[in-house]
Amino acid sequence: MYSGGYAGRTLRINLSNKTFEEEPLPEEMARDFIGGAGFGIKHLFDEVKPGIDPLGPDNILVFAPGPFTGAGVPCSSRMAVTGKSPLTGAVGMALSGGEFPTEMKFAGWDAIIIEGRAAKPTFVAVMGRKVSFHDAAQSWGTLTFDCQQLIKNELHDQNVRVCCIGPAGEHLSKMACMINERRAVGRKGLGAVMGSKNLKAIAIRGTGTIAIASDEKYKAGRSAMLKAFKESPVLYPEFSRHGTPMVADLTGAMGVLPAKNWSATGEFVPVEGIGRDAQATRKIGREHCHDCPVGCSQLKVAKTGAYAGILTEGPDFETVYSFGSGVGIGEVDPIIAADRLADELGLDTISSGVTIAFAMELFEKGILTLEETDGIDLRFGNDEAMMKVLRKIAFRNGLGDLLADGSLAAAKRIGRGAEKYAMQVKGLELPGYDVRALKAHGLGYATSYTGADHCRSYAFQEVFGIPVPWQVDRFATEGKGKLTIWNQDVRTVTLDCATMCGFLLDMAVPATACQNTATLMEAVTGLSFTPEEVLKVGERVNNLAKAFNVREGFTRADDTLPERLMTEPLKAGASKGHVISRQDLDQMLDEYYSLRGWDVKTGTPTRAKLVELGLVYVADALKL
Amino acid sequence: MYSGGYAGRTLRINLSNKTFEEEPLPEEMARDFIGGAGFGIKHLFDEVKPGIDPLGPDNILVFAPGPFTGAGVPCSSRMAVTGKSPLTGAVGMALSGGEFPTEMKFAGWDAIIIEGRAAKPTFVAVMGRKVSFHDAAQSWGTLTFDCQQLIKNELHDQNVRVCCIGPAGEHLSKMACMINERRAVGRKGLGAVMGSKNLKAIAIRGTGTIAIASDEKYKAGRSAMLKAFKESPVLYPEFSRHGTPMVADLTGAMGVLPAKNWSATGEFVPVEGIGRDAQATRKIGREHCHDCPVGCSQLKVAKTGAYAGILTEGPDFETVYSFGSGVGIGEVDPIIAADRLADELGLDTISSGVTIAFAMELFEKGILTLEETDGIDLRFGNDEAMMKVLRKIAFRNGLGDLLADGSLAAAKRIGRGAEKYAMQVKGLELPGYDVRALKAHGLGYATSYTGADHCRSYAFQEVFGIPVPWQVDRFATEGKGKLTIWNQDVRTVTLDCATMCGFLLDMAVPATACQNTATLMEAVTGLSFTPEEVLKVGERVNNLAKAFNVREGFTRADDTLPERLMTEPLKAGASKGHVISRQDLDQMLDEYYSLRGWDVKTGTPTRAKLVELGLVYVADALKL
Repeated sequence: MYSGGYAGRTLRINLSNKTFEEEPLPEEMARDFIGGAGFGIKHLFDEVKPGIDPLGPDNILVFAPGPFTGAGVPCSSRMAVTGKSPLTGAVGMALSGGEFPTEMKFAGWDAIIIEGRAAKPTFVAVMGRKVSFHDAAQSWGTLTFDCQQLIKNELHDQNVRVCCIGPAGEHLSKMACMINERRAVGRKGLGAVMGSKNLKAIAIRGTGTIAIASDEKYKAGRSAMLKAFKESPVLYPEFSRHGTPMVADLTGAMGVLPAKNWSATGEFVPVEGIGRDAQATRKIGREHCHDCPVGCSQLKVAKTGAYAGILTEGPDFETVYSFGSGVGIGEVDPIIAADRLADELGLDTISSGVTIAFAMELFEKGILTLEETDGIDLRFGNDEAMMKVLRKIAFRNGLGDLLADGSLAAAKRIGRGAEKYAMQVKGLELPGYDVRALKAHGLGYATSYTGADHCRSYAFQEVFGIPVPWQVDRFATEGKGKLTIWNQDVRTVTLDCATMCGFLLDMAVPATACQNTATLMEAVTGLSFTPEEVLKVGERVNNLAKAFNVREGFTRADDTLPERLMTEPLKAGASKGHVISRQDLDQMLDEYYSLRGWDVKTGTPTRAKLVELGLVYVADALKL
Repeated sequence: MYSGGYAGRTLRINLSNKTFEEEPLPEEMARDFIGGAGFGIKHLFDEVKPGIDPLGPDNILVFAPGPFTGAGVPCSSRMAVTGKSPLTGAVGMALSGGEFPTEMKFAGWDAIIIEGRAAKPTFVAVMGRKVSFHDAAQSWGTLTFDCQQLIKNELHDQNVRVCCIGPAGEHLSKMACMINERRAVGRKGLGAVMGSKNLKAIAIRGTGTIAIASDEKYKAGRSAMLKAFKESPVLYPEFSRHGTPMVADLTGAMGVLPAKNWSATGEFVPVEGIGRDAQATRKIGREHCHDCPVGCSQLKVAKTGAYAGILTEGPDFETVYSFGSGVGIGEVDPIIAADRLADELGLDTISSGVTIAFAMELFEKGILTLEETDGIDLRFGNDEAMMKVLRKIAFRNGLGDLLADGSLAAAKRIGRGAEKYAMQVKGLELPGYDVRALKAHGLGYATSYTGADHCRSYAFQEVFGIPVPWQVDRFATEGKGKLTIWNQDVRTVTLDCATMCGFLLDMAVPATACQNTATLMEAVTGLSFTPEEVLKVGERVNNLAKAFNVREGFTRADDTLPERLMTEPLKAGASKGHVISRQDLDQMLDEYYSLRGWDVKTGTPTRAKLVELGLVYVADALKL
């Protein structure tokens, strides 16, 4: 039995009946899935029947921090939220940090499962082990920051932590996210799932503590971790001070920062207007997640024109891409303002920015008319237009209704060849790394169980190669299957299941990530793991997620990339001439499936692999 | 000695030296000035030398709740903030409610005096009797709601109460207010005084309690008060549900709701678009000040277009006028959005709305050119223009710099006859009651020591006449001197000094207000007063405030009204044809000064009157 780390209990809340119950956390669950996304995907596969409507009452949402969360392990105040994604129809899983995950553990929960659908707008208050259901008539319709304050006032408790949706989630935009404090549970439309359940918010407060199995081992593990942080040439000197926008300078120089809906990567000049130094001119301070010594969260305030005074946390690199280069905007203040607005509306910044970029390209190409854009001059670079369309999306107003379900759904409704310009995989809009010259990223986007998701398979080896020299040829395809599997499995177990912050892996401890996780697991939970066993959990979770998708009908044909990336070589910049051809992708997919032990033809896990991973019942469910 | 109610201590904070000290509260001070504005004006007269720059380090700001605040007396969680107004050059005093005033008492303070000027942006934390000075580099430049959250995070205490300025105060707009939670310390530019001191915010937390002198008498007094509330035909049935916007319907029907910078009162049709019922369609809930059973604070969310999702507390009637009828806007959502924006920017809604209306009239008349408006089509009714100009004012950007010091200062800079259209008295913009058909209101605007301020002299007898039938002929001038003195002195002592909520007086207990205050004073503080002695405090404070103004050079000539109101009769509506002539005003002023025991010719308190009020040193200071 685990003797620390875990709260030992899962909370199951049924909104239809306004009931809740506690379930013990079995040791086997802890061993096999560790926590976070592991728990979420396990519940999702086991409890959600194939083919259900992601926006119907049969979908679930699982909020799950990890075993280190609340136990004082640096950079572990994170949680995974899992459900069936309305945007992709596949597994929807997203991570978030801040204080909410730790508060969940202090309240006594390793996971909270939300089931059913409330009869009317509701928020749920979880005060330790007490759960109450509240009429959300007051906060329904409000923006996310106001909502959090309203709920604190309504509960007469300024110390509750609130995770909520904005108007986008209420209006079931498939790009809706959740917001806790200034942090998003982004992508995959999980905010719409929450909205479909008439659940405006979860408020939580805990006063418990999390036990540590071995104080001595814990101290040693923690010290080693902090030492690795200090030794990183990037983590404190750069990343802690500048956050992720410094990636824009790097990818800009590499010629892989997508611009104007990926039509002008390498051509978009003013990286200096949106990159690290431009962002630094707007910085007013930082915020730390619970127990985080790094504080990458940059607080910035816009300075110019209509945006002066607007504060945001971020914008992170992805948002610099999605509301900046991606839509042809070369100034920092509109990006800050759009980032804040998207957070307030409860809209994922990547998906909404990329979908607006898509609409901009259609407008410039004459595929969308001025009438269809509600009279908005939707050219690349028009920041006022972007702000207007963001609001329209969240409220499904005119053009916003057309775009609210993301670029692929919009393309299908528009027809007229629009789908060619929808930059997405499985319906999920592309993150900001042009895969034509970052091949492992391409394979990652194609194969990640959530769609085009940089968090599932981020190939830092093609971008950073730090702190240990671990760089690979970013233009090559060979070996990228193996690399992607390693990245996916290591990230899954360390970041998604053990819910450690991703930047640790990328900037401090990549090579020893599984060893470190094993050490900490033993120190904190008392469960002993070898590094190989840790990695196996990552593989298990990736296989289980894939199995969910296979059960939903996904095949090798879905593990693909937008046609543009396979046919239009980069036209300018340091990666000029590169493309990720169909053949490139197929070669990498063959290697990937083969090394995964999956059926290369269908891209499906084999019975043998599932049995090896202890997932016999999954093989049975898939009739393998 | 007082035995309850008062904390017994004043906190004096010097920003120049980063020092603070405690001063005991003498019984004589409590007896003669009761609290709130009484304390503030006493400190202002005694400590601020004549002729100082209101935006220089020699000005002071006095934050003072009343003796009932924190003692559980309903509707007493209010405070007065006093300093020399940069907008008028006269006494600047404004009230605010919420939780901050009670927190001040719980922290142990009857008043906090801010002196000097910090070398760099600073915020002050008052944690009980501990005071600390903090670098405000992080929050400087932020909007007021974000600022409050940032400071809570910085202090690691979500339960502190924060009163802060926004960009308007930082940029020394003479229309800047302070914001605590969703509540303003509005008008008279006290936010600019705070900005001039480099003081972004005061954070406060208290854990003490306030003693009650006589539990028995307190219970009786409190019960009588709550009974009067219940018996009011307006307070709970109407006011608690709808707040002040219902006044727009009333004044609209009476033909005294000013429209289009007072050029079209009675002509402005769509009161139904902005009045009680229109507002009710946006209501999502209420908020209560500490210990308030009424909860007039209406939370509303805009529903349409670019404003959808924007929440505000209010808009109160004055804002319905200033951002609605006054600027020719007949819809509720732009008013909600402008109210929120002004709160975020830290701009007084009345002054900024009226100043924008002034600029709109100049633009329509061709006095301001399109170039001078930075290309903004500044016509009446253009809500987008209003929002843009609000932002410009707060940051002193282009046209905003021209308007940032209010309508009178702008008119003087513009010249070209613009002053005729500046609707202000002593520089303070007019509230929303057209005095051409509400003569006591006219006299009140002319004589209030703060300028055109409805809160100092509100003549409910001309508008409501409830709950006791106490109505007067609103068109008459006779007897308005006496009425105005009564209104001023009763309001000053009960609302400004004893810091009870104004709506009590207007809707529940006007005739017995001094008796009730005497009863509560004895019950809570143990100091016994007759109703006449209570009223005398009101008179004393009004005389002292007037003496301050006289010392600053104000004369009878300053107790006037905008020329337009004395020369242009109302053109339409239920008050058509009425005007408040120069002769009307002079008649009322003669009566007023005479009954005040002041010199009728100069409008100055006499030595005899000041001696009678125990203000010999004031008479000496004025060399009377």
